[in-house]
Amino acid sequence: MVSLNVFHRQSVQPVADLDQISDLLLQPRTLIWLDLERPSPADIALLREEFGFHPLAIEDALQEHERPKIETYPGYYLIIFYSVEYDADARELRFLPITLFVGANYLVSIRPGSVRHVQQTLARWQTNSHVPGYQVSSVLYALIDAIVDDYFVVLDQIGEQIDEVEAAIFQRGRQEVASEIFTLKKDLLFFRRIVAPERDVLNVLLRQEVRIFQPRELAYVRDVYDHLVRVTESIDLYRDLLSSALDSYLSLQGNQLNQLVKVLTLWSIILMACSLVAGIYGMNFVLMPELEQPWGYPFALGLMATIALSLAIYFKRRKWW
Amino acid sequence: MVSLNVFHRQSVQPVADLDQISDLLLQPRTLIWLDLERPSPADIALLREEFGFHPLAIEDALQEHERPKIETYPGYYLIIFYSVEYDADARELRFLPITLFVGANYLVSIRPGSVRHVQQTLARWQTNSHVPGYQVSSVLYALIDAIVDDYFVVLDQIGEQIDEVEAAIFQRGRQEVASEIFTLKKDLLFFRRIVAPERDVLNVLLRQEVRIFQPRELAYVRDVYDHLVRVTESIDLYRDLLSSALDSYLSLQGNQLNQLVKVLTLWSIILMACSLVAGIYGMNFVLMPELEQPWGYPFALGLMATIALSLAIYFKRRKWW
Amino acid sequence: MVSLNVFHRQSVQPVADLDQISDLLLQPRTLIWLDLERPSPADIALLREEFGFHPLAIEDALQEHERPKIETYPGYYLIIFYSVEYDADARELRFLPITLFVGANYLVSIRPGSVRHVQQTLARWQTNSHVPGYQVSSVLYALIDAIVDDYFVVLDQIGEQIDEVEAAIFQRGRQEVASEIFTLKKDLLFFRRIVAPERDVLNVLLRQEVRIFQPRELAYVRDVYDHLVRVTESIDLYRDLLSSALDSYLSLQGNQLNQLVKVLTLWSIILMACSLVAGIYGMNFVLMPELEQPWGYPFALGLMATIALSLAIYFKRRKWW
Amino acid sequence: MVSLNVFHRQSVQPVADLDQISDLLLQPRTLIWLDLERPSPADIALLREEFGFHPLAIEDALQEHERPKIETYPGYYLIIFYSVEYDADARELRFLPITLFVGANYLVSIRPGSVRHVQQTLARWQTNSHVPGYQVSSVLYALIDAIVDDYFVVLDQIGEQIDEVEAAIFQRGRQEVASEIFTLKKDLLFFRRIVAPERDVLNVLLRQEVRIFQPRELAYVRDVYDHLVRVTESIDLYRDLLSSALDSYLSLQGNQLNQLVKVLTLWSIILMACSLVAGIYGMNFVLMPELEQPWGYPFALGLMATIALSLAIYFKRRKWW
Amino acid sequence: MVSLNVFHRQSVQPVADLDQISDLLLQPRTLIWLDLERPSPADIALLREEFGFHPLAIEDALQEHERPKIETYPGYYLIIFYSVEYDADARELRFLPITLFVGANYLVSIRPGSVRHVQQTLARWQTNSHVPGYQVSSVLYALIDAIVDDYFVVLDQIGEQIDEVEAAIFQRGRQEVASEIFTLKKDLLFFRRIVAPERDVLNVLLRQEVRIFQPRELAYVRDVYDHLVRVTESIDLYRDLLSSALDSYLSLQGNQLNQLVKVLTLWSIILMACSLVAGIYGMNFVLMPELEQPWGYPFALGLMATIALSLAIYFKRRKWW
Repeated sequence: MVSLNVFHRQSVQPVADLDQISDLLLQPRTLIWLDLERPSPADIALLREEFGFHPLAIEDALQEHERPKIETYPGYYLIIFYSVEYDADARELRFLPITLFVGANYLVSIRPGSVRHVQQTLARWQTNSHVPGYQVSSVLYALIDAIVDDYFVVLDQIGEQIDEVEAAIFQRGRQEVASEIFTLKKDLLFFRRIVAPERDVLNVLLRQEVRIFQPRELAYVRDVYDHLVRVTESIDLYRDLLSSALDSYLSLQGNQLNQLVKVLTLWSIILMACSLVAGIYGMNFVLMPELEQPWGYPFALGLMATIALSLAIYFKRRKWW
Repeated sequence: MVSLNVFHRQSVQPVADLDQISDLLLQPRTLIWLDLERPSPADIALLREEFGFHPLAIEDALQEHERPKIETYPGYYLIIFYSVEYDADARELRFLPITLFVGANYLVSIRPGSVRHVQQTLARWQTNSHVPGYQVSSVLYALIDAIVDDYFVVLDQIGEQIDEVEAAIFQRGRQEVASEIFTLKKDLLFFRRIVAPERDVLNVLLRQEVRIFQPRELAYVRDVYDHLVRVTESIDLYRDLLSSALDSYLSLQGNQLNQLVKVLTLWSIILMACSLVAGIYGMNFVLMPELEQPWGYPFALGLMATIALSLAIYFKRRKWW
Repeated sequence: MVSLNVFHRQSVQPVADLDQISDLLLQPRTLIWLDLERPSPADIALLREEFGFHPLAIEDALQEHERPKIETYPGYYLIIFYSVEYDADARELRFLPITLFVGANYLVSIRPGSVRHVQQTLARWQTNSHVPGYQVSSVLYALIDAIVDDYFVVLDQIGEQIDEVEAAIFQRGRQEVASEIFTLKKDLLFFRRIVAPERDVLNVLLRQEVRIFQPRELAYVRDVYDHLVRVTESIDLYRDLLSSALDSYLSLQGNQLNQLVKVLTLWSIILMACSLVAGIYGMNFVLMPELEQPWGYPFALGLMATIALSLAIYFKRRKWW
Repeated sequence: MVSLNVFHRQSVQPVADLDQISDLLLQPRTLIWLDLERPSPADIALLREEFGFHPLAIEDALQEHERPKIETYPGYYLIIFYSVEYDADARELRFLPITLFVGANYLVSIRPGSVRHVQQTLARWQTNSHVPGYQVSSVLYALIDAIVDDYFVVLDQIGEQIDEVEAAIFQRGRQEVASEIFTLKKDLLFFRRIVAPERDVLNVLLRQEVRIFQPRELAYVRDVYDHLVRVTESIDLYRDLLSSALDSYLSLQGNQLNQLVKVLTLWSIILMACSLVAGIYGMNFVLMPELEQPWGYPFALGLMATIALSLAIYFKRRKWW
Repeated sequence: MVSLNVFHRQSVQPVADLDQISDLLLQPRTLIWLDLERPSPADIALLREEFGFHPLAIEDALQEHERPKIETYPGYYLIIFYSVEYDADARELRFLPITLFVGANYLVSIRPGSVRHVQQTLARWQTNSHVPGYQVSSVLYALIDAIVDDYFVVLDQIGEQIDEVEAAIFQRGRQEVASEIFTLKKDLLFFRRIVAPERDVLNVLLRQEVRIFQPRELAYVRDVYDHLVRVTESIDLYRDLLSSALDSYLSLQGNQLNQLVKVLTLWSIILMACSLVAGIYGMNFVLMPELEQPWGYPFALGLMATIALSLAIYFKRRKWW
């Protein structure tokens, strides 16, 4: 799905004819945004012909699992960023790469599926609300800012789940707790793998190694950078919390085992001791004086009760009860 | 809640009319401290209009969960610091952000709730005791020093709890110990997350990247910085102590399990062996010579005693007792 | 096995006579590729005589277990790289070192066994497809790129196995899971040990400390470098996933133990309590009123059922069932 | 307790009148050492009046729990170091801070209790044995060297205890082992917290950032620095050894549990099986052919023996014995 | 034991008279190697008098447990290196320090016991085989190279033991496995503590901070350095493998426990249930209809068999068998 929009004379207009691109690129005070969703081979050919991108850059744009990065090519930059969404049903994070070619007066965005942030930023740019002008840097900032701001939404959802997991640990009998902890840990592992290199990308922009932004715009870049730092710290905090939660779960598991074995030990000993008494008076010896006595039966029962009680008191004293 | 105080001609006076601010800012040798507790939208408008702060700076000041930082804007600095209190009842740490706008001759403090340190420093400044003059740097130092000094109070409370937890581990039967360890660990995790970037803030001040303090005042900044280093080291130490305490708890748990299983094993075997003897003489065979004998019953009891004793001695020898 | 190929006048020709090497080296616009598989002592002598390599360099080329590295000798470079293959049957990674001597117009490759990448690159160079010209740098790039690209294939195979292991954990009764986790961890340990220094090698090339590549070719080197970074990150991610999987396995193991001990405890207590009742009415006292009663037998059975039921309800209430 | 000593004209003399200090400081080729043990408020006033120390420096000198450091003040340096002693009875380390003010021709030492090293160095300086001259640097070196040399004594004592603990692990039944490991770990944690910043102090001296020592004296400073590096490495090694010892203890604990459960399992099954046989022949059926037979009783006993033996052999074969 | 050898006019001659040293040192194109094994006080005096070594340097040379290092003194260098041997019988590593004083035309080696490498290198130098000339750098290289090459022999022995341990884990019933793992880990800890600072020593030599070697000799130094890097990496790898092996052992231990408890649980329940049946028919009630029936006995046995079978099938279905 291809969508080409051009900002010219104070307003954004969609353009249907893709072959105009090379002409449009030459017009002053014009900004072109070419957005490709699941690009076809014909679209890729366009990138090569109309923009003249380097084959390695195009290869990076199409490859899956590429890590976030920024690269300088003569006359344009390649930026790869990831949009993150939390799929509440499947309980997993979804990462969608967005590849951006940033030129002096154009922006090409390539994505393997629908990415809300791209559509929203495009819409706001078209209506000229919040995302001003013909400057590629302000459009780029708007897009990256939207992507990163959403990380906090995802983080909050993860944070809530961690709270739930922590609460669930102390309600016995929930083995699922452990597997939820592992799922969350895995999500955070993948999340961190995306955020860390994105921070590097923004650092490159901040240190002006790559001069997409003007010095006076750096406050905005620094703001996004700070957000990414905060995201990283939250991820690390959450990972620590999950490790703690797992330790907590395991120590509780051990405690339950101890409780169970305590119960088993106490009752086994008491019941076996009483059974032994019953067993003894169940022997068939001809000469067992107690058997003849009228007090024999109550005596035996009393003996059992005494043994049981003494053991109970003994265990109580040793604080095993 | 808004409170505006102005130091002018050797004394601090409260000022009711907030619209005077822009005029007051122009007077020489004057220091304005505007303190906003839970600022209303009108107060926020004031920040924009009277002081002309950058929208991103105001956004940071109002956002929750912002991390401690210092940022340079033209003509003023934005500092975010955290006050920490230990809530003994709820057994948890409370973190309250304090946002400071530091100008040449003004200080604006914004906070989402009551913060003791701000009120106390303000009071001491108003009475001119300990917090001297019209210099913004001395007021800022007094405030930050008061905040950081209180960290030690909180640390001491945590330290006492760790001592209690360590002592509690070796009194059996206290499962709460584990959950207390996890609560303390969590508190320290959050505490560290506040202190580490605050140290960075002071480092920026110390290295004179941000010139709020004169070189001759740096000894004071270094002092606060040293305190934060000490706080960080104590937090790390406490975390190590808690990890050790948890390991200790788990090894004790394992030991208790071994003791229990030992008791279970020994008594089970002894009681079962005696029961087997009783069971044998409880069989109904017509021809069981022992049953007829007068010594049969005492013999059976003696056999049981012998077996029990031999097993006890055997286990004793293998040091299982 | 020795194979000598020479690029001269637009095509690659095999050369049989190895003594021509020193002559060929003097011809302009010629590229020699000498490939030695399991070199004989005579081949080694060739390296010394025809190329004049340093004894230490030759020693490195022949030693097993040498780590990936690049070294500068006067007039040529020594590069050691590793080809990795996943042996699906033996479930283990195979690492094959490739030692390269890179001169201005020659490439010597030495390997202790058959390495697919060398053969394929050689073939593509001979047919002039994809691997162009007489430049040693393009041949070197083609070779290293082929080797590193294959790492992803191996990584994917490992990734699939990790997915299998993770799925297998929650199907009970699979102890092999643990040993598979350890095998995979070991594979990744060895893999990482190869990739980390290879990254250093490419970093040396990228920073132009060693000038094998022209500045305009650096985009290609950077691409391979990025791939190695990605491989390293994937290895680290996989190791974290495996650690998580192991923790998961252990927590499940603990859970199973708790379940087992629960079953043991409940049934032991119930069965022992009923046995005690049977034991009591099996005693041989002359005077046991119940024994005479017609309702005695059903009463005893009823007593057992009542005890068993009460215990079951009690355990149910304590959520042990 | 105050002790003032002055080196003048080749010998050290005690001076009683503390008000002379400011006069003595002006004399050439004189060295003053003022030693304060548990300083009184009057002594503190002295520091302010006679030496003119900065309030923050005096505050640091009096505060407990200050970390080792060196600070530059105009005309003098503040150094905080710790003396360590191992209290064999209480089995814990004792840390005593020594605060030093180092001026051009004076040394002020402040300590909260008796510190052997200060007294000994003072004595050797007074008798001019080993600690020569009127140079403040040689006295400072003598003092610090004495303190650091004693760290090795403490380390050796800890090392011996670790050896004991390691040996004790494999003698069963010693639960104290675990708590000793934790005590030692804690000691090392505190020790490391002292040594690491002391190393920084010496690094500052070595790099000549603080010019207390002449370049030709640096070999001595480097020697102390090397000792501290060695102490740090030993502490780290000991911590690793203790972690290993703990793991070892836990694995042994697990092994003992397995052994116990093995014994329990084997004997339970054997005894229960035999009891079942006895129980069967204890049933009161009118028609049980075996009961009438003369071989019934030996047959039953034989059956039990056979079952017991078969089980024993079976378990032996499965290597459970 | 003292041995003095002098290279002069193309050959090495032993010299008996130690007082000649200071004369020999003045001769051009002469190389002196003084080797001291367990030096006596008289030998130490020699070092001071004939060579004029600094007291701190001599102290370092005599102290035990000094860490590997290189130090510059005016006119000579102090190098401490360690020779490592694996004592197969005691199953432990032996570390022997070799202290070297390296001057312009002399080498002094001091060692607390017999060190094969010193003797061999000395022998090869005396016969002029492999260790050429009068240059102190070539002798030093030969010695250090011999020491470091032997590290690989030791590593291989450790590697073999790790393989054995890994294989032994899966053969049940070998508790020694755990203690072997801990012994190996300890060995590697000590080994690493020697190798890491030795690498620093070689780095100092490589970076030409200490100019013992000529630039053209650096390829050799780099070779030894690479070997030490490889040794460090192997140690780290081995430590990871041992950690994995320990985890593997513990998971297996846990698995065995689960198996045991499973067997215990299943058999206990089956045997107890059958015993209960026997117990019931062993009760002495006057009115128990079954007892009178001819089919009573087989019925009871059949009941037991049915219960046992049902339980077995039930457990089989739950995959507990």
